[in-house]
Amino acid sequence: MLVNGKPGNFISIRDRGLLYGDGVFRTLVASRGKAQQWPLHYLKLQHDCAALGIACPDEARLSAELNGLLAQHPDGVVKLIVTRGQGTRGYAPQTGAGATHLWDVSPLPDYPADWATHGIKARLCQLRLCHQQRLAGIKHLNRLENVLAAAELSDGQLSDSRSPDSRPSGSGIAEGLLLDIAGNVIEGTRSNLFLVSNGKLITPDLSRCGVAGVQRDRVMAWAAQHKMPLQVRHIGMDELLRADELFVVNSIIGLWSISELEQRRLSGFSIARQIRKKLYEQDA
Amino acid sequence: MLVNGKPGNFISIRDRGLLYGDGVFRTLVASRGKAQQWPLHYLKLQHDCAALGIACPDEARLSAELNGLLAQHPDGVVKLIVTRGQGTRGYAPQTGAGATHLWDVSPLPDYPADWATHGIKARLCQLRLCHQQRLAGIKHLNRLENVLAAAELSDGQLSDSRSPDSRPSGSGIAEGLLLDIAGNVIEGTRSNLFLVSNGKLITPDLSRCGVAGVQRDRVMAWAAQHKMPLQVRHIGMDELLRADELFVVNSIIGLWSISELEQRRLSGFSIARQIRKKLYEQDA
Repeated sequence: MLVNGKPGNFISIRDRGLLYGDGVFRTLVASRGKAQQWPLHYLKLQHDCAALGIACPDEARLSAELNGLLAQHPDGVVKLIVTRGQGTRGYAPQTGAGATHLWDVSPLPDYPADWATHGIKARLCQLRLCHQQRLAGIKHLNRLENVLAAAELSDGQLSDSRSPDSRPSGSGIAEGLLLDIAGNVIEGTRSNLFLVSNGKLITPDLSRCGVAGVQRDRVMAWAAQHKMPLQVRHIGMDELLRADELFVVNSIIGLWSISELEQRRLSGFSIARQIRKKLYEQDA
Repeated sequence: MLVNGKPGNFISIRDRGLLYGDGVFRTLVASRGKAQQWPLHYLKLQHDCAALGIACPDEARLSAELNGLLAQHPDGVVKLIVTRGQGTRGYAPQTGAGATHLWDVSPLPDYPADWATHGIKARLCQLRLCHQQRLAGIKHLNRLENVLAAAELSDGQLSDSRSPDSRPSGSGIAEGLLLDIAGNVIEGTRSNLFLVSNGKLITPDLSRCGVAGVQRDRVMAWAAQHKMPLQVRHIGMDELLRADELFVVNSIIGLWSISELEQRRLSGFSIARQIRKKLYEQDA
C-alpha cells in the first residue's frame, strides 16, 4: 500500500478526506499484473478532481506507482484515493498542503460464478438519492447514501457491531437499485444500470445524482460502435419493470444481468451477453 | 491527539471514515481545562451514531480520554470523530471491527473581536442543500456540500493548491447562508440560523437537510425558559430578508448577529445580545 508514493497504511487524522469526505476515488481490477482500463480510470479521476478543485496527481507519477504496486500484487482490486490533503480547521479549501493520494489492494471478490452467467437477484432500495447537481456523477468520498442503501440489502436496517453478519447471503440479493427523490431509477448501490427495451439501450441520466462509472462509458461506447440506439434520460419505475433486459455494470463485477427484480423474472440476456463478451475480450 | 484511546495522529487507510465518510463528529471549545457543554455534545454524538447504526463509545470512556487531553491542552478547539471503523471492501457495514474514535485539538480561531459585538457580514451561497431525510440533522462526515459552500465565500469558486490563499479576508464575509433545493433557508456553512420577527424566534426546520447543532438546542432552551415564542419551520427568502434580527450560532463561534446580508443592513441585536450573554455565562 502506498501513501503519497511511499509504503504505508495510514493517513493523518487531519486529512480532509477523513474530516469531510473531501476527495475522490477509483476502483479497478488488476489481473496478471495489468490494471484493467487504467487510462479510462485516470481520465475519470482527472475529471472528478477538477470538479472539486483538487489538484490531480500526474498520470506519469500515478502510472509509475501503479506499476510498482502491480509487480507486488498482480491480481486484486486496486483502490486509488485522492483527497484535498491536510488543512487547517474549517470547511474552506486552503492553500499550502497539496493533495494526498494513496493506493490499496484487496483480494478479488469471490462472487458466485452463476451471477455472471445466469444473472442476479436485485431489489429496490428504500433509500432515495438526493439531488445535488454539484456532486452528481462524481465518484467522491461522501458515500453515506451508498452505505445506507447497501445496509438495506442485508437486514433491512443498519447494524452496529453487535449485529449478525451482514453479508447478503440469506436473501441471495446481489445488488440493490436506487431511485432518486423524484422517483427516477438511477443506479445500483455500487453499479450503473442499463435497460434494453425494444432494441434500444437506455441508461439513467446522472445529472442530478449517481456516479458515472468507467464501465458505463464502455457500454455506451459499445452501443455507438454497434449502431445500437442509446438513450440517456430519466427512467421511471414502470419502464424499469417493463424492460426486456436489465443489467448492471462496474469495473469489478464487469456486467451482471438481472434475472429477478422484486416479483419479476427476466430471461432475456442476449444484448447483455454480447456486451459482456466484448468487455471481457478487451480486458483479457 | 488520541486514536482509540492511544496517542496517535494517524488512522488506517481502510477506515470507513475515510473511504465513505462513514462516521460522525463533534467540535467543541476547551477553555481553562473545561470542555464546554460536553454532556450535550455526548448526547448528540450518541444520537447521531444511533442514526447511522454506529456503536457509540461509552460516555465514561470518552470523558476519561477527554480529561486526559484537557490536562495537556486546556484551551483550544476539540474535535471528536467516531467512524464505523475498518471493514472489508464494500459499502455494506460489516461486523467484526468496532468503531474508531479519535480526538484532535487545534488552537482557538482568531476571529475579529467586533464580529461578536457588532455583528458580521453574511452572504447567500449559490450551492443548494439537497434533501436527504436519512441524513438530515446528523453531523456526519459527508461534508462536501459545506466544503463547496465555504469555497464560495473566498473566491466564488473552488481552488486547487495553486490558487491564492482562500481565507475570506478581502470580502470580510464571515459566514454564508445556505438554501435548500426548494428555496428554503436552512443554515450557515458551519452554523445554525435564527430569525427574530415580531417578537418571535424562528429557526429552520432541519428534517430534510442541515445539521442540528448543540448551540441551536441551547438557544431553543433559552426561548422556552424565557417564554419567548419559538417556531421551527420552513423559512423562505422573503421572510429572511424581512427579519428584525438574524443571528448564527455554533459551539465555536458562540453567537454572531448578522449586521449585513447581501444589500440589507440590520441593527437590531437586542434579543441576540440577551441570548449571547446567557450562553456565555453558562460557558464561563
